Amino acid sequence: MSNEMINFLSTLISYPSISSNPNNSQDSKNLANFIIDSYTNLGFKMELIDNLIEGKNPLIFGKFGDDPNKKTIMFYSHYDVQPASIQDGWDTEPFDLIEKSDGYVYARGASDDKGPITATYFAMKELLETTSDIPVNIAILYEGEEESSSHGFEQTVYKNKSFFSDIDGILILDTSWFTDHRPSLDYGLRGLTYMAINVSGPNKDQHSGLVGGTIREPMSDLISILSKLIDSDGNVQVDGFYDDVLPLSDAENELYDKIDFNINDYVSYLGRNSLFQQNSKTTLMNMWRNPSLSIHGIQGAFSGSGSKTVVPASVTGKVSMRLVPNQDPKTISEIFIAYVNKIVENMNTPNSISVEPIGLGEWWYGDVNNFLFESAKSAIENYWGKEPNYVRSGGSIPIIPFMEKTFNAPAIGLPVGQSSDGAHSQNERLRIENLVGAKHVIINLLNKISNLN
Amino acid sequence: MSNEMINFLSTLISYPSISSNPNNSQDSKNLANFIIDSYTNLGFKMELIDNLIEGKNPLIFGKFGDDPNKKTIMFYSHYDVQPASIQDGWDTEPFDLIEKSDGYVYARGASDDKGPITATYFAMKELLETTSDIPVNIAILYEGEEESSSHGFEQTVYKNKSFFSDIDGILILDTSWFTDHRPSLDYGLRGLTYMAINVSGPNKDQHSGLVGGTIREPMSDLISILSKLIDSDGNVQVDGFYDDVLPLSDAENELYDKIDFNINDYVSYLGRNSLFQQNSKTTLMNMWRNPSLSIHGIQGAFSGSGSKTVVPASVTGKVSMRLVPNQDPKTISEIFIAYVNKIVENMNTPNSISVEPIGLGEWWYGDVNNFLFESAKSAIENYWGKEPNYVRSGGSIPIIPFMEKTFNAPAIGLPVGQSSDGAHSQNERLRIENLVGAKHVIINLLNKISNLN
Repeated sequence: MSNEMINFLSTLISYPSISSNPNNSQDSKNLANFIIDSYTNLGFKMELIDNLIEGKNPLIFGKFGDDPNKKTIMFYSHYDVQPASIQDGWDTEPFDLIEKSDGYVYARGASDDKGPITATYFAMKELLETTSDIPVNIAILYEGEEESSSHGFEQTVYKNKSFFSDIDGILILDTSWFTDHRPSLDYGLRGLTYMAINVSGPNKDQHSGLVGGTIREPMSDLISILSKLIDSDGNVQVDGFYDDVLPLSDAENELYDKIDFNINDYVSYLGRNSLFQQNSKTTLMNMWRNPSLSIHGIQGAFSGSGSKTVVPASVTGKVSMRLVPNQDPKTISEIFIAYVNKIVENMNTPNSISVEPIGLGEWWYGDVNNFLFESAKSAIENYWGKEPNYVRSGGSIPIIPFMEKTFNAPAIGLPVGQSSDGAHSQNERLRIENLVGAKHVIINLLNKISNLN
Repeated sequence: MSNEMINFLSTLISYPSISSNPNNSQDSKNLANFIIDSYTNLGFKMELIDNLIEGKNPLIFGKFGDDPNKKTIMFYSHYDVQPASIQDGWDTEPFDLIEKSDGYVYARGASDDKGPITATYFAMKELLETTSDIPVNIAILYEGEEESSSHGFEQTVYKNKSFFSDIDGILILDTSWFTDHRPSLDYGLRGLTYMAINVSGPNKDQHSGLVGGTIREPMSDLISILSKLIDSDGNVQVDGFYDDVLPLSDAENELYDKIDFNINDYVSYLGRNSLFQQNSKTTLMNMWRNPSLSIHGIQGAFSGSGSKTVVPASVTGKVSMRLVPNQDPKTISEIFIAYVNKIVENMNTPNSISVEPIGLGEWWYGDVNNFLFESAKSAIENYWGKEPNYVRSGGSIPIIPFMEKTFNAPAIGLPVGQSSDGAHSQNERLRIENLVGAKHVIINLLNKISNLN
């Protein structure tokens, strides 16, 4: 069976469905049609759904079964991939899948995200071949723009959501185990509020020989504002920023005790011990469950090498905050603007200063005690013989909270590959054991959910 | 005579001696040889001096007279120009001199700096034709790299300085009148210390989804340092920064009362009233005689548009200080480093922080009471019928203090064109009245100096 899975995966790989390159859009469409044909042959009702954003890759919708007595489980994955070429430093041609004697297959998309699509498809195939049925109703929702900010996903899914009946749970198959040696389940992501602080002075860029000392420079005003956003311990200084942060419960606290996470590995990955907390547990909490603020850079100022003596006329500071339950990105954006405006009032500056949000994303916080999570945990324990790591992520995937809201159903992340797969790097790989294991875990999981009925 | 001068200037203009473009180096060399031939025909001893920096334009050295009873006056100008092409928005071909009915000639280099060379040459020619002699010994020092940071000037002049005998005074012909309607004399420039503050954290750029909240980010450390360099009134916070600033004397104070300077014009040029002082005199002092600090930008951080969530691994803040008598650029660099290091100690940061000077330039402060300045003032009053503006500049021209030291002689700036000439812009121009006037002022000036003997 693993040979058959590898052959199928190899076919998915052979379509260079690079969403960031418009030249590959026909490859993406061909791949989408191949996936549709494959599921159709299993008896699924499939549709290729045009992306509402012109020129962006279509979505794949599918379903199997409509028994009202069964739960309906949705599978989310993406069929597009990051760019790759052998000139980037790959050992082998990235769109030719290679099986090596180390137990891994190597190719762009092997782990992110064509392996998970393969595991799902073969779980369905095996269930249908061995029991002539699937124990739950299935919904398939695959997109082709995940590696390009999921362009068009939300509006296209929202408009076509009537394709699906009631959804009971959503499985996100698009992450990796937190470590190489223990399976994981994902239950949370941080949200994001990205702000731009604009400071405008003279009409045009000036020269410090002319205006140095005569005018209040926009750059020093901006630096002054940026310096008041975060203290040296990483505490965000925006008034009210922490008001809505969900306090740590005993139950959540205990979850962190069980995580495989070695702070020394993290420091050695970073190359410098610049951690706020020299403690694995608090560092994990800082990454996953605590909000943060980062200053990314300044637009409009001199950013080259050398010693240019320009006085920039207008500069924009770029700042983002990673948010956690129950911080609302829009509310955070509002209190950020109020905080900066208060600073500006006290500055008494002649420059013009404005603040605007340029990106908002919802956090996601799954329930580790609902039927979906409990069934997945049990399915993983059955197959792998160990309890999964309960994992959140410090990053943001706004489509997950969007899907939970749109389908009014809980989501969990069910990772397939390992942390070392190199999803966006050269020589991306997937352990065959993980590919086969994911198929079994999916079958176990669906059977367990079916038994809950 | 003005037709002859315009024809000569037109020939100088016709060589596109753009020093920033290596393709024009033959044009520059041809122009240098034309100037050498012209002076040689007057009886000058001329030499083309190779620039010690390979590929950079040669220097022109010249002398006339070696009477030990006469003073020796050196003329500095440059024969290279800023780039120009009709595509940049010129009304006429920039290397074809055009005389218009408004009394101006238009061409790249007309004012900066081929007009001043023409005025000097015709002053010499007229003295020799009318009196068969020049009343002082003359030294000519022209360079061809002024518009490209005077590459190779200092080392080449220093190595070849024995070409010249004792120099008594240096006339810098490379500036413009401070206003359009009144001649100026330049007696000062600010110096410069340009510093780079480097903050290094992780090995590689990170993503705020991964490290936001876990590490002390280099960017927030840098912002914190930059925010402590200057206060909201423009006062530099570096300990000891003002220690060596020459106090304002009554005599200097009085100079400012006579300057034609309208603060409203300055504000309207800037496009915003962001002045520290709403007062013409103190604004002029801030520009010319007070030191300042500017933050130019940050290298290594995100500087594009949009909302990238990078956490830069290493960032470099670029800061410069304009310096005045008697601040030493090296001393300022040292106390700046000490000040930042003191901040860094109190920050207790795990990041690696270093500070280095990446540019130093001496200020220049001429004596408004020496023989050169007094003679020039009197020559200008004789010809123009008004007292010149006594002008300093906020910028830096390190070759002037270098020449004063190398030749052990005082310098003054003798401007030829007007403030509105657009020296580095489209449709650069020169008023014919100014060209002819400069010739007369030079003749008057040399006669006056001769009478001092």
